[in-house]
Amino acid sequence: MVKTYVFGHKSPDSDSITSSLVMTNLEKELGNTEVQAYRLGNINKETEFILNYLDIDAPELLENIEDDANVILVDHNSPSESVENLENANILKVVDHHKLALKTSYPLFLRFEPVGCTETILCKLYEENNVEITKEMATLMLSAIISDTLLLKSPTTTEDDKKAVTKLSKIAEIDVEEYGLKMLKAGTDLSSFSIEEILALDAKQIDFKNVKSIVNQVNTASIPDVLEMKDELEEGMNKIIEKENLDLFMLLITDIVNSNSQVIALGKNADLVEKSYDIKLEDNMVLLEGVVSRKKQVVPIMTENA
Amino acid sequence: MVKTYVFGHKSPDSDSITSSLVMTNLEKELGNTEVQAYRLGNINKETEFILNYLDIDAPELLENIEDDANVILVDHNSPSESVENLENANILKVVDHHKLALKTSYPLFLRFEPVGCTETILCKLYEENNVEITKEMATLMLSAIISDTLLLKSPTTTEDDKKAVTKLSKIAEIDVEEYGLKMLKAGTDLSSFSIEEILALDAKQIDFKNVKSIVNQVNTASIPDVLEMKDELEEGMNKIIEKENLDLFMLLITDIVNSNSQVIALGKNADLVEKSYDIKLEDNMVLLEGVVSRKKQVVPIMTENA
Repeated sequence: MVKTYVFGHKSPDSDSITSSLVMTNLEKELGNTEVQAYRLGNINKETEFILNYLDIDAPELLENIEDDANVILVDHNSPSESVENLENANILKVVDHHKLALKTSYPLFLRFEPVGCTETILCKLYEENNVEITKEMATLMLSAIISDTLLLKSPTTTEDDKKAVTKLSKIAEIDVEEYGLKMLKAGTDLSSFSIEEILALDAKQIDFKNVKSIVNQVNTASIPDVLEMKDELEEGMNKIIEKENLDLFMLLITDIVNSNSQVIALGKNADLVEKSYDIKLEDNMVLLEGVVSRKKQVVPIMTENA
Repeated sequence: MVKTYVFGHKSPDSDSITSSLVMTNLEKELGNTEVQAYRLGNINKETEFILNYLDIDAPELLENIEDDANVILVDHNSPSESVENLENANILKVVDHHKLALKTSYPLFLRFEPVGCTETILCKLYEENNVEITKEMATLMLSAIISDTLLLKSPTTTEDDKKAVTKLSKIAEIDVEEYGLKMLKAGTDLSSFSIEEILALDAKQIDFKNVKSIVNQVNTASIPDVLEMKDELEEGMNKIIEKENLDLFMLLITDIVNSNSQVIALGKNADLVEKSYDIKLEDNMVLLEGVVSRKKQVVPIMTENA
């Protein structure tokens, strides 16, 4: 049997890592024994908390894949966020909750839903296929949903996410608020990261029409703490702008307790942020009240105004 | 509540028409009352047979949609096979079994599986959502699966299609072989069509890399009968080549009884057919033994050799 690689996006977050593990387990339960979970980058602190809680190892790092390799994509579908050489791979399945950016020359299995987290879809796939959700799998799924929806408070949260959390928290025997806040706070610990690493943690390349951009999001329980590094962050952002020939680098410092985001915007199209939110940047910065979701509250608005 | 348009591809076949009806019924059962099935072109003879058998009307013809209209696509996802103005629509859902050719700027519901027919996927969606499959719905689904898989004989046929046929034939109280052959033969009746209509019946615009092509498929129980019109067909094909600035027009005349296809290939890249199948066209024609599936036995091979 030919091996199947299962992985989430580059700069992996908890959804990408846990979904690769949960999807791999589902495939095995359905009879695809030669399947393995991988990651396309370093584990963040939040994911580390989850894996430590369960005492399980992170998936292996995937550097590249051979031509015609069988792959299953979770939590992403854009080739720019995926493995090198994806264009020569044989994509068997995609389970995702993002906009559609992939084209193929062959039919495949796709399961996309506009929900807050890939794990919410995977939870349904387990049910539909009558595969038992173990305590470990439930904990992985639950953790990712808490992460992606910021404890069900993000505007990306749907009824399906809430239902999944209710179901999974029972199987996982977890107090959602208590565990969730601990987990989210673990994710805000930036102490061991260099500026370069912070700027790569959850960076997405997004083109707002012709405005070539990176939008990075860093969660925190205290915006002032992160802003102590403002000069170093701006220096790092400017280096990346130059290297990648970007028109815009937007850094969202998201306060997970109060649900706001402090934005630092640099690059020749930084005014796109001003235009999109009808605000003025001061010292390259602005506080966007109530904005916590890059997907729902940044990408569509910036795209429309670009 | 805002209206939702449900439709299959241009030059609709039985899968596109029945799937629009079956998906609309599912949406209604799930509480989306303002939903309506449409068609993007004339009904073919086979679909007419199905609708007559059930004594139901064809969906309304859809000429265009307003900006921001809610739409659900079935049996297609390529904008080139869809309604005008799709780029300004709000695509809620896509249920399909073709290669992926759509991009969106927003997340949506996608359910794609590499099976023989869209109705096989819809049959699963009914089950997963605990919606009863009525005799009428079962007949629509079953008919489309018989059509797309040529009575489960096409290489596109999967185990899932076979399972669906077993289940649906019981609900529909239909003898699959007897009903299926009658239905397929009804679809081969070209007597009431003009040459232009025959050439548009199941025509798909497909670009094999840079080779701009139309591949049309006409089912028959007797290839010689169709070839009596060869001169007129070639004249019509050449007109379309000129008008649409095509590099290739490939007409598959598929013998549904013996599972072969007579090909007529015209245009400056007609040699792509020769290269792809390692054959020589004689008088612009060749018989491709065992070839009945455009999707499985034509598109990938022609794309690879283009």
